[in-house]
Amino acid sequence: MTDRTITIDVGTDLFGANEEAAAQNAELFNQYGIRTVDIMGSVGTGKTQLIETLCEDLHDKYQILMVAGDLATTIDADRVASHGVDTVQINTGTACHLDARMLRVALNDIELSKYQLVFIENVGNLICPAGYSLGVDKKIVVVSVTEGPYMVKKHPLTIKRADLVVINKIDLAEALEFDIGALETDVREVDANIPVFRVSSKTGEGIDALVEALGL
Amino acid sequence: MTDRTITIDVGTDLFGANEEAAAQNAELFNQYGIRTVDIMGSVGTGKTQLIETLCEDLHDKYQILMVAGDLATTIDADRVASHGVDTVQINTGTACHLDARMLRVALNDIELSKYQLVFIENVGNLICPAGYSLGVDKKIVVVSVTEGPYMVKKHPLTIKRADLVVINKIDLAEALEFDIGALETDVREVDANIPVFRVSSKTGEGIDALVEALGL
Repeated sequence: MTDRTITIDVGTDLFGANEEAAAQNAELFNQYGIRTVDIMGSVGTGKTQLIETLCEDLHDKYQILMVAGDLATTIDADRVASHGVDTVQINTGTACHLDARMLRVALNDIELSKYQLVFIENVGNLICPAGYSLGVDKKIVVVSVTEGPYMVKKHPLTIKRADLVVINKIDLAEALEFDIGALETDVREVDANIPVFRVSSKTGEGIDALVEALGL
Repeated sequence: MTDRTITIDVGTDLFGANEEAAAQNAELFNQYGIRTVDIMGSVGTGKTQLIETLCEDLHDKYQILMVAGDLATTIDADRVASHGVDTVQINTGTACHLDARMLRVALNDIELSKYQLVFIENVGNLICPAGYSLGVDKKIVVVSVTEGPYMVKKHPLTIKRADLVVINKIDLAEALEFDIGALETDVREVDANIPVFRVSSKTGEGIDALVEALGL
């Protein structure tokens, strides 16, 4: 038993302006008929590899743009660009999330009529990206069997804000003695109806079902 | 090659007030002769298990208090409390870090004269905790071989703000085909002089050297 628990109340006024900008982004994407997916998740959960796998599957069907959010480096965007996909990097410096206005700035000089599908890789953590809508069709949260057993229990808000959960790196579950069923139960306790997909971006297992669920 | 890179400049005015509060905390700890360690790191890197292992090693020598920061739940504090260590939980709601004022509030009703050593487990991500001093003696960053190869390259500021790096879960390196040497090189590129410790909190490997480096 913990001796003492203190709860800090953080204001949410900041989020109003972001919601407006997100609505404008949504309108812009809609105007060009662009499908959009925001991919959230902690560092090392395989968000980039998931996008690479999805791009390999889908680049014959759609013209794809990838937007990569990171504090520093263009590692992720460069990995996806190596598959022949156009990319835009947003380096946030010290900010732990993308927001709708950053996305708008990043899209300013992009010829959007060229694209039919945009993947956005959010900054790598399970907390901040959940608070900021970007104006996308679908928000995916990627959790990985490498993260230990508590990432869902500790981040209920991120699950609530997502449309779909991907449990990634299932090929490593056995070596790590990870209980995927228990993790799915944790997800269901937060949101009884959210779709959950068991995926290995490395082996391709589960990718087809995910693509179908995304309507792509 | 990435087609386009945008860098977002985030203001740092917020940090001034925190630095003042951190200095007050440092003075308070100093007054009671309490040693303090802040442990930063992403979710699932084994921060709690590291604290549990350190407490097992040190609870005969010091009266220990553990302060646990998390958005929700008291999972980590409860784990440490099960070793007979006093704990305080700070639930931050949506905030991705502890700051110096939260820590002060949490310590308000604590009889500090009872303690000689305080471990603070920061909120689980590699980004936000780096920006906020708490007024501690040592800041440790824990990275894990389960996080993929880029967590250091992508978070240079967190390494710069730390006094010491722990590479945790080295017992899993072989199964995950993880190159620990390459990770150490990444750390050295950010800070040539920062001490790096290879540790397994599970097996206890490397813990003695870490305790010595912390002067405990």
